[in-house]
Amino acid sequence: MITWNNLDTIKAYGELEKVAKVNLQEAMAGENGANRVRNYSVPMAAGMAYNYAAKQVDDNVIDALAKLAEETQLIEKYAALYNGEVINTGEKRLVLHQMTRGQLGNDVIADGVNKRDFYVGEQKKIADFANKVHAGEITNAAGEKFTTVVQIGIGGSDLGPRAMYLALENWAKVNNTFKMEAKFISNVDPDDAAAVLHTTDLAHALFVLVSKSGTTLETLTNESFVKDALKNAGLNPSNHMVAVTSETSPLAKSSDYLAAFFMDDYIGGRFSSTSGVGGAVLSLAFGPEVFAQFLEGAAEADKTATIADIKKNPALLDALIGVYERNVLGYQNTAVLPYSQGLSRFPAHLQQLDMESNGKSVNRFGDPVNYVTGPVIFGEPGTNGQHSFYQLLHQGTDIVPLQFVGFKNNQMGKDVVIEDSTSQQKLCANVVAQIVAFACGKDDENANKKFEGGRPSSIIIGEQLNPKSLGALLSHFENKVMFQGFVWNINSFDQEGVQLGKVLAKKVLAHDTEGALKVYSELLNI
Amino acid sequence: MITWNNLDTIKAYGELEKVAKVNLQEAMAGENGANRVRNYSVPMAAGMAYNYAAKQVDDNVIDALAKLAEETQLIEKYAALYNGEVINTGEKRLVLHQMTRGQLGNDVIADGVNKRDFYVGEQKKIADFANKVHAGEITNAAGEKFTTVVQIGIGGSDLGPRAMYLALENWAKVNNTFKMEAKFISNVDPDDAAAVLHTTDLAHALFVLVSKSGTTLETLTNESFVKDALKNAGLNPSNHMVAVTSETSPLAKSSDYLAAFFMDDYIGGRFSSTSGVGGAVLSLAFGPEVFAQFLEGAAEADKTATIADIKKNPALLDALIGVYERNVLGYQNTAVLPYSQGLSRFPAHLQQLDMESNGKSVNRFGDPVNYVTGPVIFGEPGTNGQHSFYQLLHQGTDIVPLQFVGFKNNQMGKDVVIEDSTSQQKLCANVVAQIVAFACGKDDENANKKFEGGRPSSIIIGEQLNPKSLGALLSHFENKVMFQGFVWNINSFDQEGVQLGKVLAKKVLAHDTEGALKVYSELLNI
Repeated sequence: MITWNNLDTIKAYGELEKVAKVNLQEAMAGENGANRVRNYSVPMAAGMAYNYAAKQVDDNVIDALAKLAEETQLIEKYAALYNGEVINTGEKRLVLHQMTRGQLGNDVIADGVNKRDFYVGEQKKIADFANKVHAGEITNAAGEKFTTVVQIGIGGSDLGPRAMYLALENWAKVNNTFKMEAKFISNVDPDDAAAVLHTTDLAHALFVLVSKSGTTLETLTNESFVKDALKNAGLNPSNHMVAVTSETSPLAKSSDYLAAFFMDDYIGGRFSSTSGVGGAVLSLAFGPEVFAQFLEGAAEADKTATIADIKKNPALLDALIGVYERNVLGYQNTAVLPYSQGLSRFPAHLQQLDMESNGKSVNRFGDPVNYVTGPVIFGEPGTNGQHSFYQLLHQGTDIVPLQFVGFKNNQMGKDVVIEDSTSQQKLCANVVAQIVAFACGKDDENANKKFEGGRPSSIIIGEQLNPKSLGALLSHFENKVMFQGFVWNINSFDQEGVQLGKVLAKKVLAHDTEGALKVYSELLNI
Repeated sequence: MITWNNLDTIKAYGELEKVAKVNLQEAMAGENGANRVRNYSVPMAAGMAYNYAAKQVDDNVIDALAKLAEETQLIEKYAALYNGEVINTGEKRLVLHQMTRGQLGNDVIADGVNKRDFYVGEQKKIADFANKVHAGEITNAAGEKFTTVVQIGIGGSDLGPRAMYLALENWAKVNNTFKMEAKFISNVDPDDAAAVLHTTDLAHALFVLVSKSGTTLETLTNESFVKDALKNAGLNPSNHMVAVTSETSPLAKSSDYLAAFFMDDYIGGRFSSTSGVGGAVLSLAFGPEVFAQFLEGAAEADKTATIADIKKNPALLDALIGVYERNVLGYQNTAVLPYSQGLSRFPAHLQQLDMESNGKSVNRFGDPVNYVTGPVIFGEPGTNGQHSFYQLLHQGTDIVPLQFVGFKNNQMGKDVVIEDSTSQQKLCANVVAQIVAFACGKDDENANKKFEGGRPSSIIIGEQLNPKSLGALLSHFENKVMFQGFVWNINSFDQEGVQLGKVLAKKVLAHDTEGALKVYSELLNI
């Protein structure tokens, strides 16, 4: 029997607060530190590992976190989710994004269909369509192949798919699976669409319109912008556009599109990269086989997340350490720092995934919570960040927990030896050096050159950023965010915070305003 | 006589702490809110305005901040800086980035030269070089024009110039001043250089190598990577490369470069966009006249920052409100939210500018401070962010102060009318709606749909993002950061926090390691 309780009513949480705090500088010094690095490591899917040696925890803290996981029934709640219970209580919906990449528990029948069959069916439709585009069986009106795919979508229909595309673009190029360049239009700022269209060969471009509801104003506006451009170029828009939407949306049966691929209300935008939202553009860009490998990595990580032993479940452990940092140690932010240029927009995706899911102040029953919930997430790739905001991370007055990601090998296989090391070795040496510098610090007579240390970090280590490891990485963070939402007893799957602005924007556009709204509108000439 | 004192010893700061806190929801309601929007606005350079109506301040708070500005001698300290005093006490250097765009005070003679003459001379050298490249007087060995410029640099040699390039790229295209595409290589991850080179026509590419010291390992490594690629393509690297460096650097007199343009130790990397670091790539991409307009906007904002009246000095006011939010109200972060796709990487530049300058725990004399200093800075363009992390900003458990930027007109002049409004109108309506939603919130019987409000924001409003307004915007934030550093009594112009990692990375590469460093290195196969 699952029960949903606020964190501050959980007995194990009270015990966790009492566990002696770890002195990270001491813990990571000398042979003790070396042993921590050896022991505090959990295998992840796709051959990766989650290493938490430099987190401000020890066996006592981990034991207390394990009790917290047990008392809050995290594994049972995850099982309830993938077995089709209404976990999104705010919108009264199932939460089935894991099912786009595998079948973890029972068959889930909803809306009269087996949902796994439904998702697999749509994937197959997308794969067939992409294969036909690549083979020149689906072409423009002149019978010429499409060379570019342009996704039109915003939020979850943009950030995740864009981050995944950038993560695999160069890998695909050197592995001969690169089929079409992908571009993205998201912002209602007309300069966004205008700039993308300015550099796009419209006659050979295929547009993927992504909106679950079919009513997202930014996306419909940009669709219209694109259609005007196609018409002005003497092209018929319906020959250049496919839709990814829900079956009940106005886009679903329109003759305006070459094809429509379906998702449903059980997949939130920020969890939709493994659905058709990511599937169409990624299958067109890299081929359906690459997308299948991506799903395989995600499915493997979903399965790892079912393990009850916290020391063998990296998503669960990562989630609980994050809760400990947030609620017990009082840290407000988390920086995500991938040492891989391919992951340049992965932090922006995680920023949405985490902050939109867990930036909540009421629990699942609509009652205010008396503790802090989701942190602010930000980050940029290393080593770039080292020459930028790391100054504050090292010597600022607040401690920011860090989440590193690193790979042993690069994606493109080209490298150069300078001062006896390759660039890849320099990259890896830097991430290792940063972890130790943040944890241990350094004393100096000159206080300006003194590093306090005690700044906790973890690292996910993989062999290479490729479709499978990327899928596993994506799923790891989705599951981390889900587990944290369970611990905080909040609903991670709705997003009421995006609604109020929409209502007010409509008032402004209708000139139905007064007070501050009216004067601001005048200032901006609306 | 200037004196440098810690914030917690300032009498006016004690008084500021005692001023009654503003209830932002009440202040921004009804006609009172409308009056605040009308009155709480300060003209900025380039026809822009800084509006702080939705900040958690009132006349009493502003008066107290004015006293704080006076007692901490902020305007006098700024004058000392531009008159050539050694403001960067850590590295014992002058701080002269403003001089790259104007002469605010006395002539400054250093290293035996008039520094303004020196910076102007280098700008002229760059302008002449760029004009000759555009005219086809400087070409590749085959006598063909260069079509692409690729900047090789990291940190301040990358983020600022890249953000400025992206901000003006589309403006230049529609204003017929677009001369050459620019690309950027920064990360030591070999995939960064490999990916850029993969899509670059090497025979017609001009590389700009930027390193003040001439010793930045990432940049020298990437230079070598590029040279290998040029040689493999049968090209002579020295025909394809210019350097931006200091006169004392090993790069300064090398025959490896077509030309060398100079900066000096008095311009920090993150403040160098208006020096040759930004000047070379921007002049090559858009022409020297566009770069001159950019400098003009920055110079105008620098001059506005000399005004002693806090209500007429937007950088000073913005800085002090930021200190109030950080030290009195206790907010840890600031989100930068430009409603302009052209500013897509402007937040990343500000993240470096602010966090690297003010992420410090010791004062100018090396003594620990007893108060918090620089905040964490993050942000993405709106409306994109509205569909992502704004959820936490609206309904999360922590309050994050917001800095909006918006323009009345778009850059490319193309738009579409949907539901009776243009995209530009929708964009502006959204930023206005967000400001009011964050400040006023909304009550609802369903707590899940309730918005507390009380979340402070300011907005900078301009006519259009163009070279002049961009320069003014850049300078506004540089001066804001400088004033805040003065208030906190820290040195905003050094960056010891980037050093320790470098030392440890060298140890790793030399296999001179033990403890945690050794085991991490093994895990990453270094």
